[in-house]
Amino acid sequence: MKDVAARAGVGLKTVSRVVNGEPGVTPDTERRVQEAIEALGFRRNDSARVLRKGRTASIGLVLEDLADPFYGPLSRAVEEVARAHGALLINGSSAEDPDREQELVLALCARRVDGLVVIPAGDDHRYLEPEIKAGVATVFVDRPAGKIDADVVLSDSFGGARDGVAHLIAHGHRRIGFIGDMPRIHTAAERLRGYRAAMEDAGIPVEDAWMSLGVTDPLRVREAAEEMLSGPSPVTAIFAGNNRVTVTVVRVISEIGRPVALVGFDDIELADLLNPGVTVVAQDAAALGRTAAERLFRQLDGSLVTPERIELPTRLITRGSGELPPSG
Amino acid sequence: MKDVAARAGVGLKTVSRVVNGEPGVTPDTERRVQEAIEALGFRRNDSARVLRKGRTASIGLVLEDLADPFYGPLSRAVEEVARAHGALLINGSSAEDPDREQELVLALCARRVDGLVVIPAGDDHRYLEPEIKAGVATVFVDRPAGKIDADVVLSDSFGGARDGVAHLIAHGHRRIGFIGDMPRIHTAAERLRGYRAAMEDAGIPVEDAWMSLGVTDPLRVREAAEEMLSGPSPVTAIFAGNNRVTVTVVRVISEIGRPVALVGFDDIELADLLNPGVTVVAQDAAALGRTAAERLFRQLDGSLVTPERIELPTRLITRGSGELPPSG
Repeated sequence: MKDVAARAGVGLKTVSRVVNGEPGVTPDTERRVQEAIEALGFRRNDSARVLRKGRTASIGLVLEDLADPFYGPLSRAVEEVARAHGALLINGSSAEDPDREQELVLALCARRVDGLVVIPAGDDHRYLEPEIKAGVATVFVDRPAGKIDADVVLSDSFGGARDGVAHLIAHGHRRIGFIGDMPRIHTAAERLRGYRAAMEDAGIPVEDAWMSLGVTDPLRVREAAEEMLSGPSPVTAIFAGNNRVTVTVVRVISEIGRPVALVGFDDIELADLLNPGVTVVAQDAAALGRTAAERLFRQLDGSLVTPERIELPTRLITRGSGELPPSG
Repeated sequence: MKDVAARAGVGLKTVSRVVNGEPGVTPDTERRVQEAIEALGFRRNDSARVLRKGRTASIGLVLEDLADPFYGPLSRAVEEVARAHGALLINGSSAEDPDREQELVLALCARRVDGLVVIPAGDDHRYLEPEIKAGVATVFVDRPAGKIDADVVLSDSFGGARDGVAHLIAHGHRRIGFIGDMPRIHTAAERLRGYRAAMEDAGIPVEDAWMSLGVTDPLRVREAAEEMLSGPSPVTAIFAGNNRVTVTVVRVISEIGRPVALVGFDDIELADLLNPGVTVVAQDAAALGRTAAERLFRQLDGSLVTPERIELPTRLITRGSGELPPSG
């Protein structure tokens, strides 16, 4: 730290303030200190330093929605890895708001987390560069980072959706609807791309009325599903872009009184006990969390240096709803 | 702070360290400072001080299990209230371990949260007294605090379970099983008490073989349910003590090939679409979180001083499984 202070031309206390995210430093001074840190290769996560200070190591996890069951096993897996490394896990939620994501990430850094697992809401993470340079280990999960080079662990959303839609086509469907999340969300865009690829592979021209992307609250999804399932040439099958969409579509289909085929991305609890059981493209949410957290600790112990993109496979689970033939 | 330092006979920096949970203070000195703070009525959450330091207000939420869907709406409600007050929410999970709860609570305090909403795992919270005295607002939710006087927001577990079991009795059942969580957990004990009260009200002597309390993982619950449902005089109905128990019991009943009545504590997603639909005693998880968080901010603005115990009512939702007559 003395070297950093000397190089930046500031006092030790100022370096400490910058490294620990404390207030009272001008942006210009902060930049000078960050540049000195970078030039000298100083990393905040020097484990000797953590031990010297005698404080508990902690990692932060930034989720997108605290109430989405997909994040339950993911969070728990991150926590288990953290615990195995003697670290506490601290969570927060961006509620799918890029500003809030940034506010939360920086607040966690200011509270001196040693590392971050981030499910990003935004698509520009350059605001994290000073933190990463100061030694905060960072892994993105579920969706990639934007405009920075960082570790990312994803499910194969494109391949999973393509396989799920191809499964519906193999059971005789041609008029297949896609209901997904907002297109600015990476996973939603990738799954739509998978849908389009499967349709194109089968030589089926996609009609605009078959695709609906937007927020996944029950009202919007219900309206989209009801619209696709009405009119003179309704869809005979729906591919649901995530678990929130699937539960609403299951509900709409149960009310409509005729069989409609359904494949959903993400598994859902009790899907096997519904009649018909819900065929899904399952992600391994726990493996996503575990893989991301393990990479984080390998960054922290210095054994990982080059950011990588890791893609985990999905798995089609057939239970009945995806094997129904076209009706009407 | 000068007054506190003078009274405790320490320097300003030491007072600051104690108030901000920083290391480097002996237990004896910490106690002297806490006593001075208490004697002088100094409260850390003086909002002028927060504003002076220019940092973002934050509150901590300590959950029991990140993957339990019951905590999803509760967490989100706490977060919405926090956001409405311009505060960030930081979560952590105790994984039902009292030591981990304490470690996490103190780590959040050391990271200077302004308040805490705690779903306790332990039954002795005297470790929180210095923090509360130093001005950390604290509300317990879902389960009461142990050995300290603190705000608590609960569901009426006793009344809800009694009503649910009485509902099964009203539909002709006498041999009714109860499967719940570990008896040291307040809600589990209260729901068992509700079960016993309903049985006693109906003059039905309870057999030991009808009650099973323990961890709610699927293997343990499955074994308990299968045992109650086998033998020469199986139970004809089961009351499931929480949502984790209910999903496993639904699965066991679906395999067993004869109708078994079921009422579960906590609502579960898609419960209405199963056949039969699952009758539940629903808690309002969002209202628990909202009520707790609102009390927390009323503590922080100084308008609440006396700890209270608030009990929210439950609601019986009949969907079919709880209205089945005894079979066999």
